[in-house]
Amino acid sequence: MKKEVKIGLIGYGTIAQGVVRLLKENKKEIQSRLGAQLKLVGVADKDWKRKRKYPLEKSLRLNDAYQLINNPEIDIIIELVGDFPGVAEMLIDSLKAGKSVVTANKAVLAKYGKKIFQTAVRTGSQIFFEASVGGGIPVLRALRTGLCANQIQEIYGIVNGTCNYIITEMEQGRGEYKDVLKEAQRLGYAEADPGADVEGIDALHKLVILVLLGYGVSLDINKIYREGISDLSLLDFRTAQDLGYRLRLLAIARQENGFIDARVHPTLIPANSLLAKVEGVYNAIYVRGNFVGPTLFYGQGAGMEPTASAVVSDVMELARNLLSGKKSSRIKPSGYYQENPRQLKFKPIEELKMPYYLRLWVLDQPGVLAKISGILARHKISIRSVIQREGREGDSVPLVIITHLALEKSVQKAVREINRLKVVIQPAKVIRILTELEK
Amino acid sequence: MKKEVKIGLIGYGTIAQGVVRLLKENKKEIQSRLGAQLKLVGVADKDWKRKRKYPLEKSLRLNDAYQLINNPEIDIIIELVGDFPGVAEMLIDSLKAGKSVVTANKAVLAKYGKKIFQTAVRTGSQIFFEASVGGGIPVLRALRTGLCANQIQEIYGIVNGTCNYIITEMEQGRGEYKDVLKEAQRLGYAEADPGADVEGIDALHKLVILVLLGYGVSLDINKIYREGISDLSLLDFRTAQDLGYRLRLLAIARQENGFIDARVHPTLIPANSLLAKVEGVYNAIYVRGNFVGPTLFYGQGAGMEPTASAVVSDVMELARNLLSGKKSSRIKPSGYYQENPRQLKFKPIEELKMPYYLRLWVLDQPGVLAKISGILARHKISIRSVIQREGREGDSVPLVIITHLALEKSVQKAVREINRLKVVIQPAKVIRILTELEK
Repeated sequence: MKKEVKIGLIGYGTIAQGVVRLLKENKKEIQSRLGAQLKLVGVADKDWKRKRKYPLEKSLRLNDAYQLINNPEIDIIIELVGDFPGVAEMLIDSLKAGKSVVTANKAVLAKYGKKIFQTAVRTGSQIFFEASVGGGIPVLRALRTGLCANQIQEIYGIVNGTCNYIITEMEQGRGEYKDVLKEAQRLGYAEADPGADVEGIDALHKLVILVLLGYGVSLDINKIYREGISDLSLLDFRTAQDLGYRLRLLAIARQENGFIDARVHPTLIPANSLLAKVEGVYNAIYVRGNFVGPTLFYGQGAGMEPTASAVVSDVMELARNLLSGKKSSRIKPSGYYQENPRQLKFKPIEELKMPYYLRLWVLDQPGVLAKISGILARHKISIRSVIQREGREGDSVPLVIITHLALEKSVQKAVREINRLKVVIQPAKVIRILTELEK
Repeated sequence: MKKEVKIGLIGYGTIAQGVVRLLKENKKEIQSRLGAQLKLVGVADKDWKRKRKYPLEKSLRLNDAYQLINNPEIDIIIELVGDFPGVAEMLIDSLKAGKSVVTANKAVLAKYGKKIFQTAVRTGSQIFFEASVGGGIPVLRALRTGLCANQIQEIYGIVNGTCNYIITEMEQGRGEYKDVLKEAQRLGYAEADPGADVEGIDALHKLVILVLLGYGVSLDINKIYREGISDLSLLDFRTAQDLGYRLRLLAIARQENGFIDARVHPTLIPANSLLAKVEGVYNAIYVRGNFVGPTLFYGQGAGMEPTASAVVSDVMELARNLLSGKKSSRIKPSGYYQENPRQLKFKPIEELKMPYYLRLWVLDQPGVLAKISGILARHKISIRSVIQREGREGDSVPLVIITHLALEKSVQKAVREINRLKVVIQPAKVIRILTELEK
């Protein structure tokens, strides 16, 4: 029996430093679980001058990823470079070179997953990517193994810690979006260029991966509706609370009647649901299967240590396979041998029906509500309640309208008309409502 | 490639009926995930006269488990008999016959696991038992795979749905223990003979399994402190809420400084912790690892369908192994190749330190508190607060004392002395407090 599994690591950023620390600090656990050692052979990075919290010993430093990929000694390649040109090729070349591969790279998987996964299937090499969604939370494994007997019916994920931090700070009244974002940047919870997080791009990447593993469906990332959190205001949070809701940025994927829908947007969810209790940088993924019912997976969705936990757990599972002589796998990375078993068709957001929250700033004059409700009525959108809140700003006052079930397409059209009214001071903010979230 | 994996099912109770239904209803998902069929060859049960919600077709009915165990055609045996004599032998004989085995039998695993698992290791046959803890929640897999790179530091589990239902009903003031139990029995959430649930025996069995998979430690079930919920009163729930706590029956296992402790008892936990939000028959297992940090796994802990989800997911993972030519495994059922890597020593509850809640009924006369606090002081237990609640019953009044950190052994001694006081009307109820539960 092989007593050592050799690892090459590409990229030496924050998570990679966590991986190297974990391999050292938890050596005993790893060895006792594997009956073998994991040996780090080398780490490739283009820039060894950059300051790091945990510098790497010089003997392990390499400058070129292909020194690892082309090294026949190496069994497992860990890729922790991030969303850069050439990284998809590194993954593909590693698989072609017969390596087992671990990556945390949601962006590259969401964009180039099809090609990468096809290479894995063709070469028989395995690729694991637990760290790409939910950081340390083993939710991808749950979809691939622990819940695999189910038809998955719903996935609702709080999968971006930066957004959830900003949202829960606003919920607690700490300030408007811009101030809270600044504080998050100061604390290191948001990047200097926060776009990928706050515009929901990161959540979208993760959603694509969740859909693949949950439903066996490869979605075109460009078809999926995405909306970030940057135009939420304190007013929305206060109104949500008054109505018994909380606001969360959700990655949503549901199947029903032969259709699958998938989208990322701020969502009003019942205040008494478990997802509503998920605060700060934590992540949680709610998964409902037709036999298991509702489940929830909760933990730290980012950070050096939780992400390293997922990466090394992947490495260990691949090492177990190698050690028991099972290098290749006959299942695809998605966990599906034949994808899309129920032949689900994608339903674009325009065709969905749900209740809506519309927040408007309007001139405080007679007849405004009549105009707005007239437009809604013409689009067959019926109003459940109208809330006029305090908070006059100059001539204008806030107006919140909650609708009954309405067709997204109609809401979009109605809102475009409403925004053209002269009495409407700024574009309406539309927030989708999830009324039921089964315990 | 083999296109069919053959299954034999022992026992045809509620869960087994769920398994048979799942195999039919989710046939498409199963086949598309495996690239093969699961074929149920036969079901053995001693009593086919009993009425069942989902009767089995006659052609599959057998009377003797050994017709399956000795059938060379069968690849996987599912055991769903329950805690009866001879069942451990059936599991052992199945493994010896070269079958892969799936069981939900926490009682048999907790009591005879050592022998069963040794047989698995010796024969190279695999045994999976996800359904034995947390019903449909894939927490055992998380410990064995998704979190396997961690040193597990804490496990806190709400693992008995019957108890959690009774507790959360009492929390909502629906009645004292006996009335709520009766209602739970009427609704089918508690058995006619509820002892195994309400006395914490079921939770204890599950704890033994969690400890094995989390820490790689086989604990003697007789060494573990166990206390049920039958002497909790509404007074305790109200006082807990006033103090910012909730009451839950927890299965606890922690490691620290080379020691492991494990116990089952009602526990006061912070009201703002996620575990405190787990209500009704739901289960949740909080796991903290040294890299992943705190995680939580939530879902339905019992019932026909969630349990069937776990059983068939196990079957599918074993089938994947068989289909890829990997019948046997070199890892033990615990997920550890060498158990107890950190050489943890068991620390009995008497040696633990924590804060305590003491509920007393005392005569309403001068000097009572002086006597009680004198005894506590003599045992070096310092008082954090004394709460005198309304609710006189005859001559006696309720008195609640919250202590600072105290040694369990000292508390037990002090309480024995206190109970001997003539002014103390009924034995003190001691409830242990978990002050910190990291998010």
